[in-house]
Amino acid sequence: MSSSSAPASSPSAAKKLKVAIIGSGNWGSAIARIAGINTERHSDVFEKDVLMYVYEEEIKGKKLTQIINEEHENPKYLPGVKLPAHVRAVPSATEAAQGAHLLVFVLPHQFIGSVCKELKGKVDPSARAISMIKGVDVRDGDIRIFADVIEEALGVDCSALSGANIANEVAQDKFSETTIGHREGERGRESAELFFRLFDTKTFKVGMIEDVAGVSLCGALKNVVAIAAGFTDGLGWGDNAKAAVMRIGLMEMKRFSEEFFKGVKPETFTETSAGIADLITTCMGGRNRKCAEAFVKTGKPFDQLEKELLNGQKLQGTETAREVHEFLKARGKVDEYPLFRAVYSIAYEGFDVQDLTSKL
Amino acid sequence: MSSSSAPASSPSAAKKLKVAIIGSGNWGSAIARIAGINTERHSDVFEKDVLMYVYEEEIKGKKLTQIINEEHENPKYLPGVKLPAHVRAVPSATEAAQGAHLLVFVLPHQFIGSVCKELKGKVDPSARAISMIKGVDVRDGDIRIFADVIEEALGVDCSALSGANIANEVAQDKFSETTIGHREGERGRESAELFFRLFDTKTFKVGMIEDVAGVSLCGALKNVVAIAAGFTDGLGWGDNAKAAVMRIGLMEMKRFSEEFFKGVKPETFTETSAGIADLITTCMGGRNRKCAEAFVKTGKPFDQLEKELLNGQKLQGTETAREVHEFLKARGKVDEYPLFRAVYSIAYEGFDVQDLTSKL
Repeated sequence: MSSSSAPASSPSAAKKLKVAIIGSGNWGSAIARIAGINTERHSDVFEKDVLMYVYEEEIKGKKLTQIINEEHENPKYLPGVKLPAHVRAVPSATEAAQGAHLLVFVLPHQFIGSVCKELKGKVDPSARAISMIKGVDVRDGDIRIFADVIEEALGVDCSALSGANIANEVAQDKFSETTIGHREGERGRESAELFFRLFDTKTFKVGMIEDVAGVSLCGALKNVVAIAAGFTDGLGWGDNAKAAVMRIGLMEMKRFSEEFFKGVKPETFTETSAGIADLITTCMGGRNRKCAEAFVKTGKPFDQLEKELLNGQKLQGTETAREVHEFLKARGKVDEYPLFRAVYSIAYEGFDVQDLTSKL
Repeated sequence: MSSSSAPASSPSAAKKLKVAIIGSGNWGSAIARIAGINTERHSDVFEKDVLMYVYEEEIKGKKLTQIINEEHENPKYLPGVKLPAHVRAVPSATEAAQGAHLLVFVLPHQFIGSVCKELKGKVDPSARAISMIKGVDVRDGDIRIFADVIEEALGVDCSALSGANIANEVAQDKFSETTIGHREGERGRESAELFFRLFDTKTFKVGMIEDVAGVSLCGALKNVVAIAAGFTDGLGWGDNAKAAVMRIGLMEMKRFSEEFFKGVKPETFTETSAGIADLITTCMGGRNRKCAEAFVKTGKPFDQLEKELLNGQKLQGTETAREVHEFLKARGKVDEYPLFRAVYSIAYEGFDVQDLTSKL
């Protein structure tokens, strides 16, 4: 694991690097702000202007791109936070990505397929991408990380970034850390160093590790553990039980990733911000924990809680628990991950939540 | 790391093993209860009767030993929890320890010196000890773990037990885990397996690892990190910052222990209940976190907060921060542990708490 203080070497090309942010939600806007600050700060490396792809919507009769470009703020997803004026919103992913050397994917996962289809063949083949997309892609009984999906679709190398990064706190420059997982070899390391320079600030400390899969999987699997942690809260089992469930969950996350993905490093889970630190924030605050607590306390099923507490949005933890369960079931390995199994069984099969730890 | 489901092999001797608990505070009483349950459950291995050394006090005109032996409850340190009737309180450490094969040390650390002096030469040389004593022994610029102090004083091998174990929750049979750190070699493993059998229950899951020093140091150093975590709470820096400080603190705990103690295993810190899980409970609840938060919010010095919030008891986190600082200073290594240093400087040197993360 590289220290967050490792400086990036300047790119050999004299040409300054163009940055595109593909996405502009809560996290996308927060990261666009940081990228904008750093393209100005490292003007020897980066072109100052940052293009940000914004899915066009109308806000009070005005286009969101227009509001962002005039007021330098995203009032819908990151209200109250100023963006650098040179972060410019455009309503087309193709327009944002064209000619960009660094592509930052920070979209809700359901949009990544269509955006990649749109961008196919239009991205500089020497560009470098990074995925900040939460979750995993599940199709035909297989689980894939989005960095691989992007890499395959666009033919550019793709790193991943994840960490204990509640967007509003990052946007307010409260101290936090994050982790870039990069590909192996010189090009992978170079990519990480460029993204390090694009994102690292005094209060947003970037660590690097050669492990794209581990970093990506941490961001998805932590939500399953947060459901279990929320159950202990609902049960009133206390701090010992919650910490135990978090520890056991972290070990299952690590073991699952090592068993089914190549090149995963254990320390991604146990030592980085993407691993243990993000697990802590997610199990302490966060919607997965909260809904799981409400599940126990109210006895309402999760789909009803999603309507009542999340405006009908799908909860990621239960969704991922189901996907992981089906994946493990197809491979006859369900019983090797007793915490993952317990979360699935309680959420989907009517198992008594009191039995959460009975198989651990 | 051995799984908590590893069964202990029966001792080869036909003789049943006598158990003594040296200590009877909050944690001592909780662990005496579990030991008593298990000596009865595993009556093939253990003699059912458990002697518990109780520092004699008068409670409403009655001796504490007498109350415990008549009412099977420790009204002063673990009120409301029944102890097995065969856990018998005695007012002398020598009487408790004499003829015992398994010695459980669970005293406040300031009493360990005098108790060891009293027991010297009176303990069966083939006995096995385990230390549940919090903190470390600092003398003449050196830091020693209490398992080593006991081993040296009494000439018996000594393991260590630590974990995310809030005593009242354990006493109520709420789910929790703990970790036994044992010595190397066959005898060390045998000791761990016997203590595993003495403590493991359905809701108190015991893990084992060959690392006495690591397990012991986790229990001491976590309190320094909890002070830092409490500072972030006081500052209102949010969940990202708190998780980051906990992660960085865990890494310093691990690095410090690996640098200055022999045989320390990194996974003791990152994977066991003694490590990451206990750090989580200590940084979420706990007096160290709480007093550090109050330090920031009220501006009162720690010695005043100890009087107001802890009835004048010394806070372990600031004490350990000072001991670690002096230890590192004597070795010219203070700057290699920037979080430990920041905690010391803020608590003792008037450094601005806002600078907590400025050197990280």
